[in-house]
Amino acid sequence: MNLDLDVLALLRAALGDRVDTTPSSLQSARADKSGHAASGTPLAVVRAASVADVQETLRIATQTRTPVVTRGAGTGLAGGANAGSGEIALSLRSMDRIIEVRPDDLLAVVEPGILNGDLNAALAEHGMWWAPDPASRAISTVGGNIATGAGGLLCAKYGVVRDAVLGVDVVLADGRLLRLGHRTVKGVTGLDLTSLMIGSEGTLGVIVGATLKLRRLVPGDVCTIAATFTDVRAAAAASAAITASGVQPAIMELMDAAALAAVHDLLSMEPPTPGAAQLTIQTDGPAAAAEALAIAGVLRAGGGTVAISHDRAEGEHLLAIRRSMHAAMERLGTTLIEDVSVPRSALPAMFDEIARVEREHGVMIPTVAHAGDGNLHPNFIFDGPEVPAHIWEAADDLFRAALRLGGTLTGEHGIGVLKRRWLADELGDDQWELQRQITRAFDPTGILNPGKVFGD
Amino acid sequence: MNLDLDVLALLRAALGDRVDTTPSSLQSARADKSGHAASGTPLAVVRAASVADVQETLRIATQTRTPVVTRGAGTGLAGGANAGSGEIALSLRSMDRIIEVRPDDLLAVVEPGILNGDLNAALAEHGMWWAPDPASRAISTVGGNIATGAGGLLCAKYGVVRDAVLGVDVVLADGRLLRLGHRTVKGVTGLDLTSLMIGSEGTLGVIVGATLKLRRLVPGDVCTIAATFTDVRAAAAASAAITASGVQPAIMELMDAAALAAVHDLLSMEPPTPGAAQLTIQTDGPAAAAEALAIAGVLRAGGGTVAISHDRAEGEHLLAIRRSMHAAMERLGTTLIEDVSVPRSALPAMFDEIARVEREHGVMIPTVAHAGDGNLHPNFIFDGPEVPAHIWEAADDLFRAALRLGGTLTGEHGIGVLKRRWLADELGDDQWELQRQITRAFDPTGILNPGKVFGD
Ligand SMILES: Cc1cc2nc3c(=O)[nH]c(=O)nc-3n(C[C@H](O)[C@H](O)[C@H](O)COP(=O)(O)OP(=O)(O)OC[C@H]3O[C@@H](n4cnc5c(N)ncnc54)[C@H](O)[C@@H]3O)c2cc1C
Ligand SMILES: Cc1cc2nc3c(=O)[nH]c(=O)nc-3n(C[C@H](O)[C@H](O)[C@H](O)COP(=O)(O)OP(=O)(O)OC[C@H]3O[C@@H](n4cnc5c(N)ncnc54)[C@H](O)[C@@H]3O)c2cc1C
Repeated sequence: MNLDLDVLALLRAALGDRVDTTPSSLQSARADKSGHAASGTPLAVVRAASVADVQETLRIATQTRTPVVTRGAGTGLAGGANAGSGEIALSLRSMDRIIEVRPDDLLAVVEPGILNGDLNAALAEHGMWWAPDPASRAISTVGGNIATGAGGLLCAKYGVVRDAVLGVDVVLADGRLLRLGHRTVKGVTGLDLTSLMIGSEGTLGVIVGATLKLRRLVPGDVCTIAATFTDVRAAAAASAAITASGVQPAIMELMDAAALAAVHDLLSMEPPTPGAAQLTIQTDGPAAAAEALAIAGVLRAGGGTVAISHDRAEGEHLLAIRRSMHAAMERLGTTLIEDVSVPRSALPAMFDEIARVEREHGVMIPTVAHAGDGNLHPNFIFDGPEVPAHIWEAADDLFRAALRLGGTLTGEHGIGVLKRRWLADELGDDQWELQRQITRAFDPTGILNPGKVFGD
Repeated sequence: MNLDLDVLALLRAALGDRVDTTPSSLQSARADKSGHAASGTPLAVVRAASVADVQETLRIATQTRTPVVTRGAGTGLAGGANAGSGEIALSLRSMDRIIEVRPDDLLAVVEPGILNGDLNAALAEHGMWWAPDPASRAISTVGGNIATGAGGLLCAKYGVVRDAVLGVDVVLADGRLLRLGHRTVKGVTGLDLTSLMIGSEGTLGVIVGATLKLRRLVPGDVCTIAATFTDVRAAAAASAAITASGVQPAIMELMDAAALAAVHDLLSMEPPTPGAAQLTIQTDGPAAAAEALAIAGVLRAGGGTVAISHDRAEGEHLLAIRRSMHAAMERLGTTLIEDVSVPRSALPAMFDEIARVEREHGVMIPTVAHAGDGNLHPNFIFDGPEVPAHIWEAADDLFRAALRLGGTLTGEHGIGVLKRRWLADELGDDQWELQRQITRAFDPTGILNPGKVFGD
């Protein structure tokens, strides 16, 4: 008996044409946007259309001990959604309805497959938004955002996913449906399993619904500030000085010289001054203009050349430079996009470390940072489809530098497959083991995203 | 062999005079502020002075299978810190140092026993504060605040404990020390065990250190608004209308007629108009005055009689009325302070339910609410030291009403012993069982706060 065929037959009998085995679908379920792909192709892509479909898939998976890789839009940067031989890729992308929007209670109930951008377009009609705004908001799902604990440009001021979810509905490995959390803004009934699901990267259960905490659209103008510095250390020091000054920008993005040059090239702009780094800062809300002025003062004191714009469109144009980073990097070669986070005061020291790693390992690491929250994306550039050993050595050196500075391995992208071998270094063996045991309480037979986060 | 004596001997040998067995200490460790007391007295109160003391205590407890009840200041309202026969009361109150304050990174590292008020007094010198502000802030510990997931008056705008903790150091049941979370504002490395500890009420481990997320003191004036309504439903509807209007008060407290009358009596003020309910609202930050005006408009449209004060001292005086609630209730009899939370739009309906429960069960339930976040504290008043059966019946009716309205059993006080029999009603049996299993991953032999939250 061929067990794989058997699983397929069971899935088909239960789910009919929601079971997709076309070669192109199988092929694309192998990879996300990390550059990493699973070996082999999955058994099938199940395109769930309902909670019942998810439950059915998981019951069959449990019964046949078949691994399940849950997948949103596949824009992840850690390899977490990549499905290979013998695995079921369970796509939530078709479950994309908005079930309820409550302006009076500032909440929405949604299915997990809705794109973040589509949700926010719908919410804007009610004068509201869901604050998490990954640069991938137009192409990533709310379920994926929750499963990775996504951040974004605005999160220094408006919070990350962890701050914006009231509850989630979860299907466990054996097909049972749990409703975690609540519709109230406050609630401490039992353990906070909602928070545990956030950032769990498909290892604990499948998120099939979410109750989101919304904000009202911020009234008033935005001010955008672009400041250029002769070198990245000065730019990093200026961003740390802004945090220390007590003004809270809505956005504060830093681009080093290599990043800036690559984007200017992509957008056919004049090349920037060699070595120059840039901070792009936005303030909003009732005090936007006053805050922009205060920030400009700090930037100038730090040696920056500063331009302020009060025009929303011009502001978007300035931010478009930052938003083009991913595309610009792709033109330089294959990229390993890293994601370390350090205390904000340690940003200048972290840039020193990146320069050291570049020098000592002979690699190029254009870097952008969500400087308002100390989260850096060093981009390791190389040739060919697989990350070569010397790049991993450089990355290893960089991770350890971040940890030494009081930082963490991943600020928003997750561990997935790409960073699992460093997980125990940060957590310590005891905590790693405890986390592993918690996954076993959710998923006793280990069929959910095996090999991800905790390794095999 | 008398095992109890043996445990004591082991504790004394390891911890010397940090083992307190004076009758008055044993007696006071039996109770918190809930009105509930454990049966019997604990073996000893261990007054830990260091992480090593906590580890030593837990090693002995594991070795001898002795239950451990962790205790901060004992101000809890759910009976969670109450220690009885055969149990060790482990007090963290003496571990009260501030280890580090970092204005540039907006964080502080503290020991768990420091009082919230003492911490905030020290932080104010650096121009910062830790936002969670339970009405008990002067008398409750930061560790207890974290273990209960405390809220407070300001949390509708500035967040609860869950929003203000970056990491915790935890001693497990077997004495091992884990460092959970990080010093960075963002971080998704592994499962979010820090969030799991928040609100865990002593069932998962002992919090021996915390890295707190701070805010800068809010600049500018505050405006305080007092609005009186002919009945509580109108006041509740007005508070819901404010939330729906999009203005964000820093504080929005509601007192029903019975609560208001009791406090007026306590403070020797003129009696309020019979039946009248009151909203006390504060706005702060750069737009405080404009927001106060907008709020006053909504209140008047809702039938309120409105007074605005721009004076900080007068504002504190108005809030003192709300802060005197607990003392006022204690004069009426013994109180069972309940803590349900509902979606903000459901506040008027919840007050209807409270009125119904009062009527049908013939009980008096003076109620205050953190109206900005839908969290109500109905106070059941009765005679004698133990909650009588008919009060529990009334409370049961009230809990079920809150759940029907989309609410939760406890917004900030926790489950403890007092609400454990309703826990499975809200969570469902499957989630209850899963939570139980998670506690077992932390505490395999079940020595941490047995009988609390999950019952026996
Ligand atoms: C150009 C670009 C820019 C980006 N910018 C950002 C950024 O600014 N901030 C940021 O945080 N990330 C960013 N990302 C990374 C990525 O978009 C996020 O991680 C996003 O949250 C992933 O969503 P997804 O729907 O694509 O999830 P997927 O890639 O499909 O899955 C990601 C992980 O979540 C799990 N998962 C997905 N859905 C569910 C579910 N319903 N239930 C349980 N588990 C599930 C998967 O198993 C996998 O482990 C960027 C990516 C790109 C390509
Ligand atoms: C007048 C008054 C007003 C109040 N107002 C509010 C309010 O506005 N908001 C609010 O949320 N609460 C309020 N409370 C309740 C109470 O103050 C809070 O629950 C507070 O957080 C408890 O802190 P504590 O140090 O007294 O903890 P304790 O009562 O000693 O313990 C509470 C629980 O936490 C556990 N615990 C304590 N310390 C630790 C630790 N270090 N590690 C692990 N577990 C631990 C205990 O086992 C117990 O389960 C009020 C209480 C009173 C008396």
